[in-house]
Amino acid sequence: MKEERRGMLIVISGPSGTGKGTICARMLEEDKSLVFSVSATTRGPREGEKEGVHYFFITEEKYDELLAQDAFLEHATVHGHRYGTLKSQVQKMMDAGYSVVLDIDPQGAKQVMKQQEDCVSIFILPPSYAELRRRLRTRNTDDPVEIERRLGNARGEIEQMEKYRYAVVNDDLDAACAQVRAIIQAEKQRTTRYFPVVE
Amino acid sequence: MKEERRGMLIVISGPSGTGKGTICARMLEEDKSLVFSVSATTRGPREGEKEGVHYFFITEEKYDELLAQDAFLEHATVHGHRYGTLKSQVQKMMDAGYSVVLDIDPQGAKQVMKQQEDCVSIFILPPSYAELRRRLRTRNTDDPVEIERRLGNARGEIEQMEKYRYAVVNDDLDAACAQVRAIIQAEKQRTTRYFPVVE
Repeated sequence: MKEERRGMLIVISGPSGTGKGTICARMLEEDKSLVFSVSATTRGPREGEKEGVHYFFITEEKYDELLAQDAFLEHATVHGHRYGTLKSQVQKMMDAGYSVVLDIDPQGAKQVMKQQEDCVSIFILPPSYAELRRRLRTRNTDDPVEIERRLGNARGEIEQMEKYRYAVVNDDLDAACAQVRAIIQAEKQRTTRYFPVVE
Repeated sequence: MKEERRGMLIVISGPSGTGKGTICARMLEEDKSLVFSVSATTRGPREGEKEGVHYFFITEEKYDELLAQDAFLEHATVHGHRYGTLKSQVQKMMDAGYSVVLDIDPQGAKQVMKQQEDCVSIFILPPSYAELRRRLRTRNTDDPVEIERRLGNARGEIEQMEKYRYAVVNDDLDAACAQVRAIIQAEKQRTTRYFPVVE
């Protein structure tokens, strides 16, 4: 059986504290056809970080140049440092047959979905705001004000859920991973990217 | 966690001999949210067939009337008897939260996909024409001429695979069922029909 598969762009997003990072890590661990996208950043490498593996470390000038060329699928400034996902980088991985996973906040996801309408966008939800507050408290050293700010953001983000193709509630992690796994498996069978040849 | 789910229309099609019937039966057996659509027909009930369970048995006049009203999602004449899937019937089941499975040949599938663009259409392929010939020989009492006619049809049908949303090769039955299962599971998470409410 001859067959050809094209890679896809998978956008996994959701409010801070919903566990999207854990879900992404699990998916990549078990499916070798998935890769994380490597971002470009203007900050310097930290101990152990390798060029092209963790980030592409670039100068402010280079970043401005790429921005002017509309080279980013999404970009953001965090604590004064700039980060961006290069379209060329994502395309390169997809051309090589890999599916690229973007673990990204809803603001970034919005930018990506606008530019790549055929991306596989998955929105991860918390089971309740009370549980989200609990998770934010447990895992962050954030002060209560910061936690309430994130909860406020979550409400606005959840209202825009229908912009995503799929929604998954992360109540039980194993169940949420099973749903995301099924979505990825299903999307691999789309006739737009799966080409079996019957001979 | 409050949530609401809307049912969907699942069209499973493919050339004669690919095993789509077996796959459909398995899916319905394991997932109680799935139901087969009940067709209307002009032929009389056979031993044990019940009105509204196996078919809706209707007169030729009633069939003509429904046809004139554009009441069918798809319809066909087989051995002089007419069969059709009623839109109202499918809608009723979907409104009740069920997903309706249509196990149907590619000609019927084409009619359905034209009318219901958001249906979940899955095309089942044989691993090879040699294997398809073998399966047709094993399971049919058909003469060689009929088998070759079906193989010819299969070639034409497989060429139109891209009209379907998904393609699944039925080489190993368990593997094919796993792919169809993932597709149904994924489609249940679509934000167009899944509405989780975070409180």
